[in-house]
Amino acid sequence: MSVAAIERPNGFVGNVEDRALAEALFDALKQATGDGIGITREAYGPKESEALDIVEARARELGLATERDAGANLVVTLEGSEPDLPFLACGSHLDSVPQGGNFDGAAGVIAGLAVIAGFRAEGFVPRRTIKVYGLRGEESSRFGRAYMGSSALFGKLSAADLAAKDARAGRTLAQCMADVGVDMGRVSKGEPLLDPTAVFAWIELHIEQGPVLVARDLPVGIVTGIRGNIRHRTVECVGEAGHSGAVPRWLRRDAVFATAELITHLDRHWRTLLERGRDVVVTSGVFGTDPQEHAIARIPGRVNFSFEVRSQSRETLEAFYDLFLSECGMIGEERGVDFKLDRRLEAEPAVMDAGWIARLKSAARDLGLPDEEIPSGAGHDSAVFANAGIPSAMLFVRNEHGSHNPHEAMEIDDLLAGIAVMRAAIREAVR
Amino acid sequence: MSVAAIERPNGFVGNVEDRALAEALFDALKQATGDGIGITREAYGPKESEALDIVEARARELGLATERDAGANLVVTLEGSEPDLPFLACGSHLDSVPQGGNFDGAAGVIAGLAVIAGFRAEGFVPRRTIKVYGLRGEESSRFGRAYMGSSALFGKLSAADLAAKDARAGRTLAQCMADVGVDMGRVSKGEPLLDPTAVFAWIELHIEQGPVLVARDLPVGIVTGIRGNIRHRTVECVGEAGHSGAVPRWLRRDAVFATAELITHLDRHWRTLLERGRDVVVTSGVFGTDPQEHAIARIPGRVNFSFEVRSQSRETLEAFYDLFLSECGMIGEERGVDFKLDRRLEAEPAVMDAGWIARLKSAARDLGLPDEEIPSGAGHDSAVFANAGIPSAMLFVRNEHGSHNPHEAMEIDDLLAGIAVMRAAIREAVR
Repeated sequence: MSVAAIERPNGFVGNVEDRALAEALFDALKQATGDGIGITREAYGPKESEALDIVEARARELGLATERDAGANLVVTLEGSEPDLPFLACGSHLDSVPQGGNFDGAAGVIAGLAVIAGFRAEGFVPRRTIKVYGLRGEESSRFGRAYMGSSALFGKLSAADLAAKDARAGRTLAQCMADVGVDMGRVSKGEPLLDPTAVFAWIELHIEQGPVLVARDLPVGIVTGIRGNIRHRTVECVGEAGHSGAVPRWLRRDAVFATAELITHLDRHWRTLLERGRDVVVTSGVFGTDPQEHAIARIPGRVNFSFEVRSQSRETLEAFYDLFLSECGMIGEERGVDFKLDRRLEAEPAVMDAGWIARLKSAARDLGLPDEEIPSGAGHDSAVFANAGIPSAMLFVRNEHGSHNPHEAMEIDDLLAGIAVMRAAIREAVR
Repeated sequence: MSVAAIERPNGFVGNVEDRALAEALFDALKQATGDGIGITREAYGPKESEALDIVEARARELGLATERDAGANLVVTLEGSEPDLPFLACGSHLDSVPQGGNFDGAAGVIAGLAVIAGFRAEGFVPRRTIKVYGLRGEESSRFGRAYMGSSALFGKLSAADLAAKDARAGRTLAQCMADVGVDMGRVSKGEPLLDPTAVFAWIELHIEQGPVLVARDLPVGIVTGIRGNIRHRTVECVGEAGHSGAVPRWLRRDAVFATAELITHLDRHWRTLLERGRDVVVTSGVFGTDPQEHAIARIPGRVNFSFEVRSQSRETLEAFYDLFLSECGMIGEERGVDFKLDRRLEAEPAVMDAGWIARLKSAARDLGLPDEEIPSGAGHDSAVFANAGIPSAMLFVRNEHGSHNPHEAMEIDDLLAGIAVMRAAIREAVR
């Protein structure tokens, strides 16, 4: 794939070495992990490992030291002149959803690598060591749980998390982590693999996964906070199957009609909360009758669906979740169905560090770029770093068509602008 | 399986030979076509053929002549003393939905066989020849089209019907019919395999597939008419996939929320029509996001679902279908999704023959049984025979837990009552 540069009024003239590095790595990743439709690099799977290998090989060619940490993440290091000081960490994740895009996650790892490769090439030796992370397991599509790679670093994977199964492969997260070399003895005890006090800051560049920067014609945005979420991977609506022609409406226990009504009610509550100025998004991404027993002429007795609510406010998350439980109860009673919930999963909302927000905005202004703030609708590993007490910051790069689909379209010029902002802010902090 | 006889206040003391025949055949069918959960005898598939073989072998043991007609259906004949007269046809179908029950269809074939086996055993020679049909392909679960076996008899399968594919096996109806020996030269030209004027009447016994006879404590019911239907096997709702956290509500094109709203609106229209006294049932038996691309954290860009409306009134069918199209248009416009409809399939409603209804009611009364009338909510091959101009009648037998599921539960005592009514009415008509 060649990433075409489209003329934009605020096109940023980036560094030619950054461009060459980014284009080469995106091409190599696409070659290795394309699935014919999009990109598939499943969490703790072989294609994710291949992505780590590709980035590591390039880092070594650039003369940088590389290793795998106890979480089997890739770490590329530029040692500082005072290596005992807390180090600056940056990077992002290298996994993807099935049939996703090439930029979600990888852009941030490549950006981090470009920053330290540039420092090394110009002979700039920072006071603090800088480590670039190529994290594993950020996406929830395989195990329901998101931020597995960063959560493992801070001892935050529970026994239930580790027992979660990949529906298709039938293997647990623990098994798949062990397969790629994670130190499961420590992870399963909830022992941190990384001491938060040893980390000076965490900086993550990521493509925007929503349409805001495109709509507002901004190449980059400085992130203020990250939405948390409450999820159920599988809610099972259990009614009663029967012949579609022979059971009158008042005797039906139709799982599709019941779940459709639930979703429609949630949509109305969502609209009401938005009208009152709350921050919230609601999604049921997986929804279906049972392929082993469904038929056109059969009243569906069973539907499985996923539930997700996201908000920057913990209070709003809990309020919406209460509405969800209440609707399950009322609709279940009225329609003679049961809504059976699996384990509740959640991710905390997170606030980005005010000092770093100021530093990134200042760097953007100095480069002649806009310094707009933007909230993050999607969750990110940065939330885990922030909630571990590490001052954290994020930079979004403009990207069309959203993410988690094969059509995501970041322009390299915009990424180069992001790298320049990140490099300037980091240089300022570690000099 | 042993079919336990539960004491009922109006339990009918049936014929011991009928009981032995029915129990032996249901056991043999269950052994051969059980799937571990229920019964699976797919239309024009090997397990359906095995069911025909089992019934045929038993008919031969009973000294009856058997053959396969040009539609590859089983035909068991008791020749009359005036074989040139139009013959009386009876029976039902031997296929089932996946993981269905053992009685839906097979009960009527066994009842027909019991009637003529009884006549033969007692030395009764009817004036008219009686033919018992073990029809194939009544259920729509495999190809979307129902009544394929009876429709083929009257040249009513279109090129589009024959091109319909089994989603799992990837083979067309025409291929599967050819596999079991149907004369496809005639069927594909729309040539009738059976001359309706050669048929004096069609009588079909079937388990009730709804809860009415159980609720009213009636062992049998005399059917007045059969609901027709309009269907789409697959309606595709196409929106746009995207990251579940990053796209605000006003920019979403969520296929699950759109389809849930559609179903909820149809449910309201249904309730309104019922309140106005219309006969109608509505079902979406197959519903799902795409397992190849769905994920908890992805806005669903695509949903496939089936649509079915049934009514005894053609006018009500068309009125509801118009509401469906109108809702697809409005919701599509409001939510930025497209509802793409596949081929519209339909089955005509049918009225049962008044003379035969009277004859069956009279026979029931003579046997000390109730003679209640009941509409058929489900479709049956009898509708095809009736719409071909053949005087047709149906007898329902009480059955718990509906049908199209493994839990259907007809009691043999009730079947014996149905066989006795059918035998008396047929004896009266063919003597």
